[in-house]
Amino acid sequence: MPNLSALQNHQVRLASRPIGEPTRENWSFTTEAVAEPAEGGVLIKTLYLSLDPAMRGWMNDAKSYIPPVGINEVMRAGGIGEVIASKNPNFAVGDLVNASLGVQEYCLIPADQLKRSGIFKIDTRVGSPTQWLNVLGMPGMTGYFGLMDVGQPKAGETVLVSGAAGAVGQTVGQVAKIKGARAVGIAGGKAKCDFVVNELGFDACIDYKAGSVRDGLKEHCPNGVDVYFDNVGGEILDHVLAKINRKARIIICGAISQYNNTTAVQGPKNYLSLLVNRARMEGIVVFDYADRYHLAVAEMAGYLKDGRMKSREDVVKGLDTFPETLMKLFKGENFGKLVLQVAD
Amino acid sequence: MPNLSALQNHQVRLASRPIGEPTRENWSFTTEAVAEPAEGGVLIKTLYLSLDPAMRGWMNDAKSYIPPVGINEVMRAGGIGEVIASKNPNFAVGDLVNASLGVQEYCLIPADQLKRSGIFKIDTRVGSPTQWLNVLGMPGMTGYFGLMDVGQPKAGETVLVSGAAGAVGQTVGQVAKIKGARAVGIAGGKAKCDFVVNELGFDACIDYKAGSVRDGLKEHCPNGVDVYFDNVGGEILDHVLAKINRKARIIICGAISQYNNTTAVQGPKNYLSLLVNRARMEGIVVFDYADRYHLAVAEMAGYLKDGRMKSREDVVKGLDTFPETLMKLFKGENFGKLVLQVAD
Repeated sequence: MPNLSALQNHQVRLASRPIGEPTRENWSFTTEAVAEPAEGGVLIKTLYLSLDPAMRGWMNDAKSYIPPVGINEVMRAGGIGEVIASKNPNFAVGDLVNASLGVQEYCLIPADQLKRSGIFKIDTRVGSPTQWLNVLGMPGMTGYFGLMDVGQPKAGETVLVSGAAGAVGQTVGQVAKIKGARAVGIAGGKAKCDFVVNELGFDACIDYKAGSVRDGLKEHCPNGVDVYFDNVGGEILDHVLAKINRKARIIICGAISQYNNTTAVQGPKNYLSLLVNRARMEGIVVFDYADRYHLAVAEMAGYLKDGRMKSREDVVKGLDTFPETLMKLFKGENFGKLVLQVAD
Repeated sequence: MPNLSALQNHQVRLASRPIGEPTRENWSFTTEAVAEPAEGGVLIKTLYLSLDPAMRGWMNDAKSYIPPVGINEVMRAGGIGEVIASKNPNFAVGDLVNASLGVQEYCLIPADQLKRSGIFKIDTRVGSPTQWLNVLGMPGMTGYFGLMDVGQPKAGETVLVSGAAGAVGQTVGQVAKIKGARAVGIAGGKAKCDFVVNELGFDACIDYKAGSVRDGLKEHCPNGVDVYFDNVGGEILDHVLAKINRKARIIICGAISQYNNTTAVQGPKNYLSLLVNRARMEGIVVFDYADRYHLAVAEMAGYLKDGRMKSREDVVKGLDTFPETLMKLFKGENFGKLVLQVAD
């Protein structure tokens, strides 16, 4: 066990609730001594943190699927860390784990919090630590179960996904292809679209920054859209609603275009297309599938191994960059799953 | 067979496509001689026509689940009529039938159009002609299959329906009660709400004209909403989205509040409640259930007979009143299923 009393834990806390885009002023930076775990607990050194669009929602004081982060609390974040002290027989020093660690360098998890933290050991023979935050982690599980359980794509159908170069999007499109569907992405910029088609193997990708999404849908979804996995909301959702097929399934996973709104969320004006097409729009929260994560991880690990699936992460170094790094998500600047590297 | 050449067929045709609310100027009134049916055809005298919110959509030149009515075509309408001439062995003079008759006094259906007209004989021992346009007709089928197939209410759940005093709404709430759910309606005005509770047996009814729907939901849906059958769209849909339970089902049947809009349809701003609650919003078109109508009719006829179900119609006389009578739907002035009586 290292000399814990010599360690300082740098933390990022929510100082105030943002209106619109979060800025550095909404965060506070604190330093605490690191404490030893009590009986049954573990102390984890943070290596990588997962930065996700959902974090923006946790900053609001609103009823949601999870309570908001409180003012002056360490910001919530899932991540990969190394156990550096353990008083729990299930975890040994040196174990790599995935858990809700928070935006901080060290995370002490008492015995009674272990289950809630979602902690589990990761196997680096199956995937790298950052892959465990991507296709093998929450985004991968979100994409997999949203697509398979709600979307239920059939071979030959057209599966469309927005945020295609992002963490969830890359899983959705690649799994759709493996299952025999046609995969079309929507992403911002030529580099991302090229990556989505050339590296990830989607059939096409629409660059929403380069031209009209409506025209792109016309060109790349000539047979309409059977499954739409929506990560963005806003106008793109409306364009897609105008192109859905009979009995289409729309998975509502997020609405990144709306998270920093200072006005009301833009509702989908074309929602009556659901009526005309006897179609369905359904929300998904990944935690509901926790008892089947291991099955999806095993399946996707197989695809990673045989090369049918790729996992791309955008790794930014430094805990202190957190406020600006998080904003890359909302500016569409991340290229692949956004990961904050906190330690080597 | 009557002297057909002595009969004049008065008709209402679509003269121009309305912008916003249809007015008398959008209709033309024509008179034609009545012709004898050719081999395999039937001639029907219109008794009652069904006036439905969906008619407003048929007047628009837009892609929908059914082609629009063409300019100068007789307005489409389903109804009950009497066969007055037949060259088809399946139909005898005197038979009462339900079919797509159009807004006219006589309807000649050639052999090759019979199937498309949806024609079937009605049995007045099972229900009156106007009941065959209400709970035993399209509105009843819409309510029944939308509720049972998409809504799938469980005993003890809260089923909410807008337009509760209307044709679809009365079926939804009464079937929900029979299936053991709690039924709450939304309707306009004290008289309608009293009718919905006292006559139809709903557990409660929210008067959207008397106060805030939000407060009404709080009071009358204390355990939230499990199934919402939406006939109105607009702000009420948003209020309900804020009150849905986990895994709620929203049936999108119509959006009468939006049909006469001259601006874009109001999209549901609170649609992300679907995500938070893992809920579903799904469209329904009644024609999809045509092969099971007979089962639902038999079931509901039983409820009418044993008194568990009531059927209320608002009957207005006179073909020439059609333009104004139709508008009762959009002004919320009809009390029960709106029926136009064309002949005695």
